[in-house]
Amino acid sequence: MQTPSPVAAVILAAGKGTRMKSDLHKVLHPIAGRPMLLHLIDAVSALEPARTVVVTGAGREQVEAAVAPVGAATALQAEQLGTGHAVLQAKAALADFDGDVLVLYGDVPLVRPETMRRMLEALHEDGTPSAVVLGFRPADPAAYGRIVAGSDGRIAKMVEFKDATPEERAVDLCNSGLMAVRAADLWRLLEQVGNDNAAGEYYLPDIVLLAIAEGRWARVIETEADEVAGVNSRAERAMVEEVWQQRRRAEAMAAGATLIAPHTVWFAHDTRIGRDVTIEPNVFFGPGVTIGNKVAIRAFSHVEGATVGEGATVGPFARLRPGAVLAPESHVGNFVELKNATLGAGAKANHLTYLGDASIGAGANIGAGTITCNYDGFFKHRTSIGQGAFVGSNSALVAPVTIGDGAIVAAGSVVTRDVQGDALVLVRPESVIKPGWAARFRAHMQAKKAEKK
Amino acid sequence: MQTPSPVAAVILAAGKGTRMKSDLHKVLHPIAGRPMLLHLIDAVSALEPARTVVVTGAGREQVEAAVAPVGAATALQAEQLGTGHAVLQAKAALADFDGDVLVLYGDVPLVRPETMRRMLEALHEDGTPSAVVLGFRPADPAAYGRIVAGSDGRIAKMVEFKDATPEERAVDLCNSGLMAVRAADLWRLLEQVGNDNAAGEYYLPDIVLLAIAEGRWARVIETEADEVAGVNSRAERAMVEEVWQQRRRAEAMAAGATLIAPHTVWFAHDTRIGRDVTIEPNVFFGPGVTIGNKVAIRAFSHVEGATVGEGATVGPFARLRPGAVLAPESHVGNFVELKNATLGAGAKANHLTYLGDASIGAGANIGAGTITCNYDGFFKHRTSIGQGAFVGSNSALVAPVTIGDGAIVAAGSVVTRDVQGDALVLVRPESVIKPGWAARFRAHMQAKKAEKK
Amino acid sequence: MQTPSPVAAVILAAGKGTRMKSDLHKVLHPIAGRPMLLHLIDAVSALEPARTVVVTGAGREQVEAAVAPVGAATALQAEQLGTGHAVLQAKAALADFDGDVLVLYGDVPLVRPETMRRMLEALHEDGTPSAVVLGFRPADPAAYGRIVAGSDGRIAKMVEFKDATPEERAVDLCNSGLMAVRAADLWRLLEQVGNDNAAGEYYLPDIVLLAIAEGRWARVIETEADEVAGVNSRAERAMVEEVWQQRRRAEAMAAGATLIAPHTVWFAHDTRIGRDVTIEPNVFFGPGVTIGNKVAIRAFSHVEGATVGEGATVGPFARLRPGAVLAPESHVGNFVELKNATLGAGAKANHLTYLGDASIGAGANIGAGTITCNYDGFFKHRTSIGQGAFVGSNSALVAPVTIGDGAIVAAGSVVTRDVQGDALVLVRPESVIKPGWAARFRAHMQAKKAEKK
Repeated sequence: MQTPSPVAAVILAAGKGTRMKSDLHKVLHPIAGRPMLLHLIDAVSALEPARTVVVTGAGREQVEAAVAPVGAATALQAEQLGTGHAVLQAKAALADFDGDVLVLYGDVPLVRPETMRRMLEALHEDGTPSAVVLGFRPADPAAYGRIVAGSDGRIAKMVEFKDATPEERAVDLCNSGLMAVRAADLWRLLEQVGNDNAAGEYYLPDIVLLAIAEGRWARVIETEADEVAGVNSRAERAMVEEVWQQRRRAEAMAAGATLIAPHTVWFAHDTRIGRDVTIEPNVFFGPGVTIGNKVAIRAFSHVEGATVGEGATVGPFARLRPGAVLAPESHVGNFVELKNATLGAGAKANHLTYLGDASIGAGANIGAGTITCNYDGFFKHRTSIGQGAFVGSNSALVAPVTIGDGAIVAAGSVVTRDVQGDALVLVRPESVIKPGWAARFRAHMQAKKAEKK
Repeated sequence: MQTPSPVAAVILAAGKGTRMKSDLHKVLHPIAGRPMLLHLIDAVSALEPARTVVVTGAGREQVEAAVAPVGAATALQAEQLGTGHAVLQAKAALADFDGDVLVLYGDVPLVRPETMRRMLEALHEDGTPSAVVLGFRPADPAAYGRIVAGSDGRIAKMVEFKDATPEERAVDLCNSGLMAVRAADLWRLLEQVGNDNAAGEYYLPDIVLLAIAEGRWARVIETEADEVAGVNSRAERAMVEEVWQQRRRAEAMAAGATLIAPHTVWFAHDTRIGRDVTIEPNVFFGPGVTIGNKVAIRAFSHVEGATVGEGATVGPFARLRPGAVLAPESHVGNFVELKNATLGAGAKANHLTYLGDASIGAGANIGAGTITCNYDGFFKHRTSIGQGAFVGSNSALVAPVTIGDGAIVAAGSVVTRDVQGDALVLVRPESVIKPGWAARFRAHMQAKKAEKK
Repeated sequence: MQTPSPVAAVILAAGKGTRMKSDLHKVLHPIAGRPMLLHLIDAVSALEPARTVVVTGAGREQVEAAVAPVGAATALQAEQLGTGHAVLQAKAALADFDGDVLVLYGDVPLVRPETMRRMLEALHEDGTPSAVVLGFRPADPAAYGRIVAGSDGRIAKMVEFKDATPEERAVDLCNSGLMAVRAADLWRLLEQVGNDNAAGEYYLPDIVLLAIAEGRWARVIETEADEVAGVNSRAERAMVEEVWQQRRRAEAMAAGATLIAPHTVWFAHDTRIGRDVTIEPNVFFGPGVTIGNKVAIRAFSHVEGATVGEGATVGPFARLRPGAVLAPESHVGNFVELKNATLGAGAKANHLTYLGDASIGAGANIGAGTITCNYDGFFKHRTSIGQGAFVGSNSALVAPVTIGDGAIVAAGSVVTRDVQGDALVLVRPESVIKPGWAARFRAHMQAKKAEKK
């Protein structure tokens, strides 16, 4: 995504997040199955930034471990001396950088790349402002800091709620805290920010006031309140998750999926859904899912790490775990779990079945109650079932084991040895029938029950 | 439902529905398990119309096939030349009809018969207007066409949003497009409608303007915005579904059912629910369900084509498929599936069971993990279990098979032959116990595991 | 909770509740798994009242039976002569009581103790009013009785909606009906209340007018509309349940639990949840549940009467029934049901299993498809599985039975006798393999199928 100048992102993530009441750092709480900080870094990466610096503090080890794999740098803010001070900690990491800096917040994770780019473009508009601040108009402005600005976006004043006059409080344009500033301006102005205020903190927004004081100007651009929703509590995390899910549901429907009841479908950050897919109410997607065209995901299904081919049917009450691969036109029915298992084209596992570490050939029929015994307490072993094989109900397949193409496993069998193609395997004792036994048993038990009373 | 004159309905369904991104025609997308067009035709049928004509265009074969079984006629609009032109295509099919015509839209499926009747009655009021238009006041009038009318409903002007003056745009009374007109007026006025506009289309609302121009008058009557919600995208389909479901949930509660969390219960178009029924959160009803009085449907149940008798308990996690019939006071518990199966009075199938093509006698107890093996890969066969029979856990009943009244099936049996009443059937090999074997196995495997490292 | 004077509560519960269309008395319909009347009595009990009197009428036997266990008295209102008359029926039960009386309603169950205390404190403020009325400002005041009062809360007039002037109707402060009055004032004023009105009823609010008429004053204090929501229909019950659930979800999140989608989690009145617990979408808690710290309750789980230890994982698709006790770090997976069963530390039951009346030792592994056969049709029996035991898939354990520590049950076994520690038990017939049989069977069946056509 094109930006006017090279860009670096500074993401503040030093806050402790006490209100989360959690051992997990606030910015690592997940949204759609992925730490919120990584959602933000992912959005930033669409701008192809020269560098991304995450400012850490409390719980830094957790944050450092989380961002290392995505190539973000970190800078430590050892003491919590305010947002201005926090940004300044990134200076060393950006010593050789001379473009635009975006200041973002690890607990404001839903900002879109398009919005970031709008901020950067505004920084290079006619009259080149010294800073661009992202504002929003919430339904209830409450205690947010206010931005007093002209209709052209030129900022006259930024004021904390507690310092605002009644007139200023009547302004409904609020400060999200997000900002775009040229690196040179940023470091120069930050050095001038003081902490002569009630909290004794160095405030980032003061750089806007300093710029104005030196005769420059700053502008505000606006976005939806939802996009800059912040997370300070688990209730706010849930609200942000809901915003994310609503975005994603709308996208899925726009792309041609029917969601019978959209608000009951949960997507993960990376779920991919085809066209003319139908999703019944109450479906949960964990990470790593790809759903092909014309698939039906029926109600009460839980799907993670799975690939579902065109025309397949899943659920209701299906559980697809990582490594489940369903070929086109295959069927997974109720109370069926697949894990690390491939189901061939047109194959069916419709009822009460566990298929783990298995490959099932095309057209095979897996009877109700079939279990692959894939674990001996020490190792996992694979089960291989051939094309067109028929596994009778309530069978246990003790892996490693191979059932050949077209073979039949009689109901109730425990199969411990390989079965060649087109063979029948039958593991079943003789029936013993004892006429009248049940009647005698009942009489005996009823007497015993009467005795106990 | 009484109407002032004979009535015919013209339902426009020629639009392609491109925004649905679907191979299925827009008006055939389901609401509550039934194509939306059929919801509308069903509402019309309450008026006992002389004829219903569906105007088709793109995807006509799909629409024709869907409406044929309900006895609606179709008329082809070969080219998409506007709503006026579309209605005109129905003229031939109504050649011999001389009553009132209702113009409806296949993608506006929730209009109630009562509202249609109000439109028809208004057409015969004092001063008999030449047309009755159905208006609504949406929360956000957006780009809807506006109706300028007096407080008595007399229409002064109807105007497309794009042609409206600022004053007209300030009007919040919008045009749903639905109309009632006498047949003679309709055909006469439609012949006069021109296509001298930007889109080059023949617009149905123009007949109102023409009527006014010739000294007649037309009136608007109003309804709720929800009732005339249209479907142009899958997101709108979901909204219309939610409107329908909310109506239905309110009806179910008013009739004496407790819905613990109404917004998590999905009804089908034909679900019937008794009194003092309790429905826990997250229950999905497919078509063809009848639930008796004092039934409890517990959470996470999926019920289609099933009949549940008085006092029965279903779920949680129950799946009732078509042909499931539960007699009074019977119990279906968790992870249990019934398909084409009858459960007798007081009988229980409480855990992890599949009953397909089966009849279970009154008072029978079906143990956990019981499977009816109803399919041999070629044919389906029936299982019959007598009254008071006791089927031990983890049994497989290989159909066709009959278990007599009062018989007992020992746990883990695979039953392949009929069992007479009051008998015990036991299909079980001898136990082999190998003392110390497990300890030796563990030692061996741990060594092997260590070796692998 | 401190109150200024001794307090007694009079709870009106004589109304029939016809609109509920139920055989169950209205005030006994549950909210969060407990009769709504008991929610209210529980809130009252926080004030440590001298006495609680429930005024009964229609369906009194049901109400008396419900309140007896919690020690509330009842008084019969034999005829329905209005709220004033109803309160008067409690006089005898409070003959020797000389403190403050709170008048409450059995169908207004969500009033908080804090609000009750505020009412009582206001009764003892400077200028000691003769009565304190609880008012609220609903979004739509509709037909509620209005309270005309000064900004200091001094009541000028209380008026039923139908008797109100347009000016009075424009007032949005409504009367909840809840009131605090000194006992002596209450009985004296109630004797003076007449029934000279359209309905011929004795109205409780008239005591306020009488007090004002005799030169005393009364005040209104306000609360949120949600808190005084009343239940006259099942739809209103559902709304009140939703208010309760939202309160409870917010509390759970504030205390450190992550609810991925809060609106899809249902708590019972007594659910206890630890810190750093994660609850996926669609979880239902019945009564009697305690969840420890760092537990994950995955989607589609149904949990009642269960205790889950620190670090345990439950679900998705788990059913925990009363008496399920999960030790720390244990795992219950999909399509698994526990009832009256203990799962030891680190033990696993991950797939398609029923554990009833069982104790499972620490570290044991329960294979997929394991069933404890705990019922012989007459008695329940226990299964005991030792520490570190390994139960192979698809096994049936016929109770009473003991599997020793470290023992191994081979897959598919039906175990009917005790197995000593470290032993292997194997209950399995010889395999019979019939090469080519399946191919011949298929040929035969295909021929048969062709024949049938």
